[in-house]
Amino acid sequence: MKAWQFTNTHEPLVLNEVPEPTAGEGEVVLEMKAAGLCHSDVGLLEDEGWLSMLAKRPITIGHENAGVVAEVGPGVTDFQVGDRVGVCPTTPAGAPGYSFDGGFAPKMTVAAEALVPLPDNVDFLQGAAATDAGMTSYAAVITQGGVKEGDTVGIIGLGGLGQIGAVVAMLAGADVYVAEVNEKVWPLAEELGAKGVKKSISEFEDVTFDVIVDFAGFDTTTAEAVDIIRRDGTVVVVGMGKLESTISTKSLILNQARLVGSNGGTKEDVAGVYEYMATGKLNPTITTISFDEIPAGIEKLKNGEVVGRLVASFE
Amino acid sequence: MKAWQFTNTHEPLVLNEVPEPTAGEGEVVLEMKAAGLCHSDVGLLEDEGWLSMLAKRPITIGHENAGVVAEVGPGVTDFQVGDRVGVCPTTPAGAPGYSFDGGFAPKMTVAAEALVPLPDNVDFLQGAAATDAGMTSYAAVITQGGVKEGDTVGIIGLGGLGQIGAVVAMLAGADVYVAEVNEKVWPLAEELGAKGVKKSISEFEDVTFDVIVDFAGFDTTTAEAVDIIRRDGTVVVVGMGKLESTISTKSLILNQARLVGSNGGTKEDVAGVYEYMATGKLNPTITTISFDEIPAGIEKLKNGEVVGRLVASFE
Repeated sequence: MKAWQFTNTHEPLVLNEVPEPTAGEGEVVLEMKAAGLCHSDVGLLEDEGWLSMLAKRPITIGHENAGVVAEVGPGVTDFQVGDRVGVCPTTPAGAPGYSFDGGFAPKMTVAAEALVPLPDNVDFLQGAAATDAGMTSYAAVITQGGVKEGDTVGIIGLGGLGQIGAVVAMLAGADVYVAEVNEKVWPLAEELGAKGVKKSISEFEDVTFDVIVDFAGFDTTTAEAVDIIRRDGTVVVVGMGKLESTISTKSLILNQARLVGSNGGTKEDVAGVYEYMATGKLNPTITTISFDEIPAGIEKLKNGEVVGRLVASFE
Repeated sequence: MKAWQFTNTHEPLVLNEVPEPTAGEGEVVLEMKAAGLCHSDVGLLEDEGWLSMLAKRPITIGHENAGVVAEVGPGVTDFQVGDRVGVCPTTPAGAPGYSFDGGFAPKMTVAAEALVPLPDNVDFLQGAAATDAGMTSYAAVITQGGVKEGDTVGIIGLGGLGQIGAVVAMLAGADVYVAEVNEKVWPLAEELGAKGVKKSISEFEDVTFDVIVDFAGFDTTTAEAVDIIRRDGTVVVVGMGKLESTISTKSLILNQARLVGSNGGTKEDVAGVYEYMATGKLNPTITTISFDEIPAGIEKLKNGEVVGRLVASFE
């Protein structure tokens, strides 16, 4: 079969002929139905810093995967052939596309422990997108942020993750305010149900935030969140727009606030996203491309030309 | 009676004749036994920024207070004449010496809701010191840091607060490592029972910290703590050596760590300190002066000439 493989930084992906995968002990073979593309794919192609994360080269990339179980290895009892599943990329089994061959191929082998059942009424495109952007957003808002019914929540950055995070917070019962520098996205914020949208979180002078989730992470965005969070409130930082932030420890101390990092998530977070998706109320915008268009899709991501999440459909 | 009163910034304290205090609804009159002196007293005398915190002028200062209930006002049911108590300076009743006349006087009026029973075997000097340095350290380590049995804890800065914090962490059952730039203090760290002492927390390369409490707060101290804390670990920042810190949000995110500000504490924290003091194992160093020596004591604090906490004894 043909798989999109990464060979080296600054080199284009190569469509290599690779062996058909098989399922070993505790593993399944998935027939791929959808594989999401991600800004980290852009990073991998451009920044040598990612090389150390790869278990081998060439390696088939693609870490946002959903499909149907096509073969079950010995010792797998929780799943059977025909099951619709998503793949959690952050289990001890390792990350597809990093620790082992990922989903930019017609089939992939994956440990059963990484699988999350995909509800019947959630399609594979959403199922794939949910495993990275969805999981990450849900974990940041719900697991790390602790957002609950009645909270007032700030969402900084209404990109792919922020959009999901905003809806997740609303589905959890929170009032959501959005800070987004790009005014073109403002109508979307209102459409999603935000109570307000401004350029920066500090412009919401009259709002008392219980939780602010910074999906941008551009230094000043985090610093502003720390400055305006309520006493005993929580700021979650997810986005790594910059690698450092100069925050006011004075504000953090006087407000007894928490600044919490959120990194990925767990199978439980993926399952949480699927549950919200199954209600029909969490429908992240997805741009669909074909398997052949994957390299062009990564280029589009790099150039900021993609609306919503970009997912390759194998159907 | 005579009370040490603050009149204005850059002016010495004045020993004014003031009326004997009385107990109104929900209040008690305390016969003062000990009143601690604090670096914030130095700040008040030198920096106009503190003026806005004062409810009136002249005002009797002194916010670290312990004494005996001498009179009980209407509606007070939890305390009676003769009770030994400390005064929590951070309740809704306000702060002694800021919101109302404080303890640099033979008697003070205070709301009963601010009182914490002082165990019989904790002396008034310790009881007074516990209400500020003790409470603040305990709150940072136990309440905000969540330190518990079996944890590995880093204490940055072995000043007055850090010394108490280190012992509190040990009494909670943690292994404690100390980072202190001043090597003269290193023997004290070992004497207190620290497992190790180095100049900076990042030098403990082989130690996995569950919690690090930064009593220094000198920007880089916080940043180093964030860099080396374990995944899902907690860094508490208490000290305001500098008002900002440039932290690695990358480390915070990848480690899913928490950076938590700690500011003062509550009655429960004061009670927690008293409980530890009652075991005989928490004995912060105290330098005792007389009531008359209070202005000279503040001058000594300013000049860094005080070992441990400075407390005026009224006995």
